[in-house]
Amino acid sequence: MEVDLKADAAKKASRILAILDENIKNEALKNMALKLVENKREILEANEKDVSIAKAKGVKESLIDRLKLNEKRIEGMANGLREIAMLPDPVGNIEEMWKRPNGLQIGKMRCPIGVIGIIYESRPNVTADAAGLCLKSGNAVILKGGSDAINSNIAIVKVISSAAEECGIPKGAIQLIENTDREEVNRMMKLNGKIDLIIPRGGANLIQNVIQNSTVPVIETGVGNCHVFVDSDADLEKAINIIVNAKTQRPGVCNAIETVLIHKDLAEDFLPVMVDKLASLGVEIRGCNMTKSICPNVKEATEDDWKTEYLDLILAVKVVESIDEAIDHIAKYSSGHSESIITENYTNAMKFLKAVDSAAVYVNASTRFTDGGEFGFGAEIGISTQKMHARGPMGLKELTTYKYVILGNGQIRE
Amino acid sequence: MEVDLKADAAKKASRILAILDENIKNEALKNMALKLVENKREILEANEKDVSIAKAKGVKESLIDRLKLNEKRIEGMANGLREIAMLPDPVGNIEEMWKRPNGLQIGKMRCPIGVIGIIYESRPNVTADAAGLCLKSGNAVILKGGSDAINSNIAIVKVISSAAEECGIPKGAIQLIENTDREEVNRMMKLNGKIDLIIPRGGANLIQNVIQNSTVPVIETGVGNCHVFVDSDADLEKAINIIVNAKTQRPGVCNAIETVLIHKDLAEDFLPVMVDKLASLGVEIRGCNMTKSICPNVKEATEDDWKTEYLDLILAVKVVESIDEAIDHIAKYSSGHSESIITENYTNAMKFLKAVDSAAVYVNASTRFTDGGEFGFGAEIGISTQKMHARGPMGLKELTTYKYVILGNGQIRE
Repeated sequence: MEVDLKADAAKKASRILAILDENIKNEALKNMALKLVENKREILEANEKDVSIAKAKGVKESLIDRLKLNEKRIEGMANGLREIAMLPDPVGNIEEMWKRPNGLQIGKMRCPIGVIGIIYESRPNVTADAAGLCLKSGNAVILKGGSDAINSNIAIVKVISSAAEECGIPKGAIQLIENTDREEVNRMMKLNGKIDLIIPRGGANLIQNVIQNSTVPVIETGVGNCHVFVDSDADLEKAINIIVNAKTQRPGVCNAIETVLIHKDLAEDFLPVMVDKLASLGVEIRGCNMTKSICPNVKEATEDDWKTEYLDLILAVKVVESIDEAIDHIAKYSSGHSESIITENYTNAMKFLKAVDSAAVYVNASTRFTDGGEFGFGAEIGISTQKMHARGPMGLKELTTYKYVILGNGQIRE
Repeated sequence: MEVDLKADAAKKASRILAILDENIKNEALKNMALKLVENKREILEANEKDVSIAKAKGVKESLIDRLKLNEKRIEGMANGLREIAMLPDPVGNIEEMWKRPNGLQIGKMRCPIGVIGIIYESRPNVTADAAGLCLKSGNAVILKGGSDAINSNIAIVKVISSAAEECGIPKGAIQLIENTDREEVNRMMKLNGKIDLIIPRGGANLIQNVIQNSTVPVIETGVGNCHVFVDSDADLEKAINIIVNAKTQRPGVCNAIETVLIHKDLAEDFLPVMVDKLASLGVEIRGCNMTKSICPNVKEATEDDWKTEYLDLILAVKVVESIDEAIDHIAKYSSGHSESIITENYTNAMKFLKAVDSAAVYVNASTRFTDGGEFGFGAEIGISTQKMHARGPMGLKELTTYKYVILGNGQIRE
């Protein structure tokens, strides 16, 4: 099958990539950016084909918007690659080194993972982003995009892979699975030994399908059922600003909040102010019984509301007895992405940081900062919501692993 | 099923364990050690039952030796727990912290993984080891041992879990699956959301079965097809000492070597010396054509020999043209465990460290040092031969993950 052949080529390329000079990788990234812009007409033509097929199939407008490219979006892809070229290369960095009593020097050296498979949906800009991040971190990449974007993806990969090869990147470093047959992706998920890691990017169904079926290790990304807890000692101005920001600044993304938990001691003072403010911004509130008794106009929340990632201008609100009830609620319903406590109480802040088990736990800040750029990593390949390997925003370092390097002078074990 | 109920209890316990005071965990470990010794009669009786059942089934002697406990082995288990109590606790450690331009302080805090499943074979000492390491790192553990050791494991877990609970460890922190039905382990491997990680410990079949069937993340451990490459500039005394040590000091373990690669320039001088020395220690040599032409008495190696983890006094030997051929051979046949170059040439040493993609890469030292104790980690739960999350010896730190903790003062995203 296509994926077997491409995985073999990728494995071969990955050995060369792993020891490639940083400057070659950076020159390749800059050339990829240049060639994307130079070949924009060809890419836009391919994209038009995808868009008209999608329209004919009756795909809904929001998905067509994600699929559609224009000059500005191609410039955006090119700029993304230029930014990746400017980030420091983690490969070869020895992060720690220690001496053993027998004189062995043991260090941990960052190295590429090897071959990374990316399974994603209709946004063709993921193609260039993912290829750039994998290349810079010394990994070969096998891209499996959505069938809706197949013509766009073929055009993009043709341009960027040949631009990379012009600069000395081995063939097989950047490849796309062109066959849109389901069997290819099923096969891809079973290629242990040829593919080292699969990162699914897209909706919950796509991610669950990969988790359930892949025998290759998977990093789970994306779903964010995020919470803000307003503690009894909260600064109410900070609280309202953070809640408004985390809910409304960009409601469709995974680090936006979906539920606010409010300590009962300030519910009567705070809730009416918060509800009015959010209502004025077009947010629908769904509240617990206590919330409803204070603000009778809000809708009633059901069990489902505590579980839902709305990705929309809807907010669930619950009044809690204590910080412990807030922590329990988060443990029960959170997807492990981002949570924030608003408090002026030092002990409660420390307790929340320690007890809440999510990728990013905040005190007095908006959850919207859970992002590779905002954390200072530069670009990111996704936000991990699982616990193995990497948690939270995954930048270049998270696309590497390490090996132990041990410097001896003849040591043998007694 | 039993495993569902126990996984629920483990998840509950894991939330308490995650924030437990280090002293409570250490007192519990010391009490577990004490009670193992105090209850040794009961444990030995249960073990005798297992041994006599195994004998009646005709299980072979070497496996019965692994299964069999005696006072000294129980003392060994107890001492192992006491050593774990003395190791530093990684949980809560903030490894790095940085400030962003907006004033956010972002840190990486070590935290437990949650619930860890250990699937292992007949050695009952794994039961106490794994329970101790998981407890110290703040994880709940679900143990699934081999059916041959079921009575021993029940007795051990009864003693150590009640000893732990006496010291304030929550019920559910240490549990054994007592039902030896295959369905339990199949179910265990599908409990995503309840079990966070599965570590298989045992032979290649057990490990492959877990990798193929688990939807829960798995860390692959153990198989070691390790190499020594004797470069053209090798110090021959170091080379012979290291090869003898790595092959014969304990041939049955995963960090022993299975193949020696020898640069052609010193094959004629070095091979006869090496072969004589190893033969005098009872090692059977299987050589390539060139090896045979220099030492006609050695057996001929086949393709299978390059792939085999002998775990025995057998060594495959191949003469290579160059360091590049050695690196290619290792890339093709190694299981990614440990490899060593013997050389006085600086550039070749650095090249080998960079290009060889195994968990531990040595210059001028025996591969037998790939071990948690030898690396300075204290005890280890296994040696990872995969690339995600942890590579090489896995100590307490490798049984944790991290979360980002972010300290703000009202920051919102623009």
